Amino acid sequence: MSYEPVNFAEKLAKFSEHFSPRVVARMNDYEFRLAKIEGDFVWHSHAETDEVFVVIEGEMRIDFRDGSVALKAGEMFVVPRGVEHKPYAARECAIMLVEPAGTINTGGAGGELTAENDVWV
Amino acid sequence: MSYEPVNFAEKLAKFSEHFSPRVVARMNDYEFRLAKIEGDFVWHSHAETDEVFVVIEGEMRIDFRDGSVALKAGEMFVVPRGVEHKPYAARECAIMLVEPAGTINTGGAGGELTAENDVWV
Repeated sequence: MSYEPVNFAEKLAKFSEHFSPRVVARMNDYEFRLAKIEGDFVWHSHAETDEVFVVIEGEMRIDFRDGSVALKAGEMFVVPRGVEHKPYAARECAIMLVEPAGTINTGGAGGELTAENDVWV
Repeated sequence: MSYEPVNFAEKLAKFSEHFSPRVVARMNDYEFRLAKIEGDFVWHSHAETDEVFVVIEGEMRIDFRDGSVALKAGEMFVVPRGVEHKPYAARECAIMLVEPAGTINTGGAGGELTAENDVWV
């Protein structure tokens, strides 16, 4: 039989909300999530896990209390567990997040940008 | 300070060997590994873990005993644990693998294509 890959562009075409990650694949107890971001996210950290950002389309920045990292398509960065960070994109940017299933997008910060978890696309 | 992202193209330019994964990032106890593949890999499986394939450049196929999946740049697939598979690329293809640190590229099959593990680039 012919198995189907996950195509990032096709998945991204299926939603438009910003800061609302959609699960596209699961590996063991980890999820691969696509998200569209624009503007400022909230300062937060994840006490229990590192968090991977891979940029699929566009450019973004992750601010830290002591600096920042600029990311564009074809680049990734691992935010270590416990490190406060704030994602930002001047224009819409499509990213893939890799983190344990159950990880909350706003970490311990909460607030109105907290997304429903484990929503597949 | 300014932190440095992992740039896939820059990392891929630093090695040429086929079927010889290079670690570019670590998240918790998982590794993100870039590899260049061309031709047939060996049939193998990983008894303890799922294995993620993300195609960065080019096209590849993963054969299973009951079918196959074709992947091109911007696509991914998760091979479930225990499932026999054989990666193949007609022409050189650059991929990213995500799997637990310590995972052997040939799984339980061994043989001459077994790569040294945990080599960073």
